[in-house]
Amino acid sequence: MSITKEIAVLSGDGIGPEVTSVAVKILQAVCERHDYTLKTENHEVGGASIDRFGRPLTRETLEACKKADAVLLGAVGGSQWDDQPKDKRPEAALLGLRKELGLYANLRPIKTYESLIHASPLKEEIIRDVDIMIVRELTGGIYFGRPRLIEKTDTGERGVDTLIYTTEEVKRIVHTAFETAAVRNRKVTSVDKANVLDSSRLWRRTVTESAKQWPEVTLEHMLVDNCAMQLVRYPSQFDVIVTGNMFGDILSDEASMITGSIGMLPSASLGEKHAMYEPVHGSAPDIAGENKANPLATIASVALMCRYSLDMPEAAREIEEAIETTLKDGFRTGDISTDPSREYVVDTTEMGSAVLKHLNPNLQPGTLL
Amino acid sequence: MSITKEIAVLSGDGIGPEVTSVAVKILQAVCERHDYTLKTENHEVGGASIDRFGRPLTRETLEACKKADAVLLGAVGGSQWDDQPKDKRPEAALLGLRKELGLYANLRPIKTYESLIHASPLKEEIIRDVDIMIVRELTGGIYFGRPRLIEKTDTGERGVDTLIYTTEEVKRIVHTAFETAAVRNRKVTSVDKANVLDSSRLWRRTVTESAKQWPEVTLEHMLVDNCAMQLVRYPSQFDVIVTGNMFGDILSDEASMITGSIGMLPSASLGEKHAMYEPVHGSAPDIAGENKANPLATIASVALMCRYSLDMPEAAREIEEAIETTLKDGFRTGDISTDPSREYVVDTTEMGSAVLKHLNPNLQPGTLL
Ligand SMILES: [Mg+2]
Ligand SMILES: [Mg+2]
Repeated sequence: MSITKEIAVLSGDGIGPEVTSVAVKILQAVCERHDYTLKTENHEVGGASIDRFGRPLTRETLEACKKADAVLLGAVGGSQWDDQPKDKRPEAALLGLRKELGLYANLRPIKTYESLIHASPLKEEIIRDVDIMIVRELTGGIYFGRPRLIEKTDTGERGVDTLIYTTEEVKRIVHTAFETAAVRNRKVTSVDKANVLDSSRLWRRTVTESAKQWPEVTLEHMLVDNCAMQLVRYPSQFDVIVTGNMFGDILSDEASMITGSIGMLPSASLGEKHAMYEPVHGSAPDIAGENKANPLATIASVALMCRYSLDMPEAAREIEEAIETTLKDGFRTGDISTDPSREYVVDTTEMGSAVLKHLNPNLQPGTLL
Repeated sequence: MSITKEIAVLSGDGIGPEVTSVAVKILQAVCERHDYTLKTENHEVGGASIDRFGRPLTRETLEACKKADAVLLGAVGGSQWDDQPKDKRPEAALLGLRKELGLYANLRPIKTYESLIHASPLKEEIIRDVDIMIVRELTGGIYFGRPRLIEKTDTGERGVDTLIYTTEEVKRIVHTAFETAAVRNRKVTSVDKANVLDSSRLWRRTVTESAKQWPEVTLEHMLVDNCAMQLVRYPSQFDVIVTGNMFGDILSDEASMITGSIGMLPSASLGEKHAMYEPVHGSAPDIAGENKANPLATIASVALMCRYSLDMPEAAREIEEAIETTLKDGFRTGDISTDPSREYVVDTTEMGSAVLKHLNPNLQPGTLL
C-alpha cells in the first residue's frame, strides 16, 4: 500500500485556478511515478471566499490547511475587492494563513534559467550562475511591532512603527537558513543594519552565536544597503541570504528582477508544523480565464513542496529538470517569449503538458492536460 | 568689486585631501571665469581631527562650517580608528555635521555617462537615459527614533527600534523634492510602505496634500519593494525619487550601482541655512596618498554646490559638461578604466587638469594642477 500525501489547494483569484490546476497535475504525475497516493482538497480563499462566504479566509479553509501535509496557493486579489476595508481584502487571507499556520520563514529561490538569460536587465556575465535562496523572516519585525499609530501633535501629526526582534525569532529563522545552506553551497549571508539599529545588533549577535552549530557553513554579515548594491553588482556571490521581514521584502523583490522573469519564481512559507507554497507573481486579473498565464512558477512551487514538505527530494529535482528541459525545447508562454519566430509560444495547459511529457514520456499528446 | 563666496573645506582622511584639493581648483577656475572671489578655509574632520584634537568634530570646525556659504567634505574613516567607541569614530563627524547644520535633505543624482555606459552590470538599453535624483530624508526616521534598546526578557533578549515621521518632517523634504523636480523633468516618485506601515500612511497622505502646491509636477506613489525592482527593471522611468531615511539609504546605494561607477557619484546634503557637498565614495585608505584616486565625484559635488548653494547654475553646467567631455576624450583613472589600450589612464591631478582645461582653455599644460 502506498503512502498518501494530502494537499490543500487554495487556488484563489484571477489566474490562480488555472495555474494551480496545471501544477496539481504535475504533482499527481510525480506521485504516481514514485508510488505515492495524492489526495487533494480544494478550498476557497481571497476574493473567491469573500464572494461566497463574506470573508477572505474561513475557519473551514484554515482547518483544512492545518490537517494537510502542505498547502498550495494560487494567487489572491482583484480590483473588484479593492473597496473592502483592509481586514476584509483578499490579501488579508495571506496574513491570516501565515499567522494561523505559524509560517515564519519565507523562502524565495532566485535562479537563472540558461534559456531565459537574455530576458534579464542585467548582462549575461553578471547573472550566469546566479542561484540564491532568500530566507526572509515573515511573522516579526516592523510589519507587526507595536506600538503602531498615527497621533495628533501640537503642530500636526506623527506616525509611529516599531521594529522588534527577539532572540527566539532570530534563532529559528537562522535554523531554517543554515539547514537550507547545509544542503546547498554552504554559505549564509546575514543581512542587517547593525551599524545603526539596535534590533540589528541583537540580530547579528544572535546569528553569530547560533551559527556555531553549523561549522561546515560559512557565515558572513552584510549591511542591507550594501546587499542592495551587491545583488546588482555581483549576485552570484550569494548562496543563502537570511534577513528580517522588511529587508527581506525589499531585497527579494529586487533579486526577483535580476533574472528578468518574475513569472518564473516560486516561494515556500514554512513553520514548525505547516507549510504553504505559492508563485511569487500575483493574480493577473487582466488575463484571468484566458488560459494564457505562465504556470511554471506554480509548478516550481510544487517542486519546493516535494522537497520541503513531502519528503520527495528526487521528485523535486525531476520537476525542476522538466521545467529546464521544457524551456530548452523552446516552449514559452507569452510573458517569457522574446523571439516568437524561434520559440513555441504556448498557452497555460500546453506549457503544463510540455512539462508533464518530460515526467511521463509514455503519455500521448492527446491525453495530457 | 566681485562677490565673495566662502567655502569650508573639510578634506578628512584617506584620499579626501587629494580629491578635495583638485575639486577646489576647479571651483576656483569657475569662480574666476564668472568674476567671483573664492575664499576657502581648511579644517580638520574625522580621523584627522581625532589625531590632532582627540575628537572627530571640533566646535571650531563646526563654527567655520556655519559661517561658510557651503561645506566641501572629502571623506572620513580608516582602520586605524576602528577601535574607537562609536561616538568617537571618524564617521560620527558626519552625523554631528548633519545634525548641527540641520542637513535634512540628502540629494544623490544618478546619471549615466555615455562614455562609461559599458561599465554597468545592466544592459546599455536599460541604463541609457538614466537621470535620477534621489532625495532622501536624512535626520529623521528609524535611524533616530526613540525608544531604541536591547533588553532582557524571560527567555532571552529583544531589540527595539522606532520609526517616526512627523507632518513637518515630511513637508520640508517634499518641498526640497518638488523644487528640485520643478527644474528637472517635473516628476516626483514618493516611495513608502503605506500598505503596511502607519508612518508611511502619514507620509503618503502628507506628500499628496503638499504636492498640490506644485501643480506642474506629476506625483506618483510607489511601494519600496516595487521601487527596488523598478530601479533594476526600468530605471529611466524616474526623475526625482523622494523617500525616508532608511528606504533612501537602501535605494540610493542600489541605484548607485546601476551606473557601474560609484567613483563618479556626487552628493549634496541640504538644510534651511547650510549645505554640505561630498562624493559618495569612501576614504579608500588603500590608495591614499598615491595620487591615484578618481576626483570626478568630488568635482561633480562642487558642481552641485554651484547649483544649490552658490547661485551659479551656469558654472554647475560648465563643470558637468567639462566632466563629460573629459570622459569622451578618453581620460580615465584606474577605477573606471576598462580598455587601457584605447584610453588615457591618468592619475588624480592629471584628471583634474584635463577637466580644468575644458573650463579654461588658455591654461598651459605645465601650469595646471
Ligand atoms: Mg514585496
Ligand atoms: Mg548607505
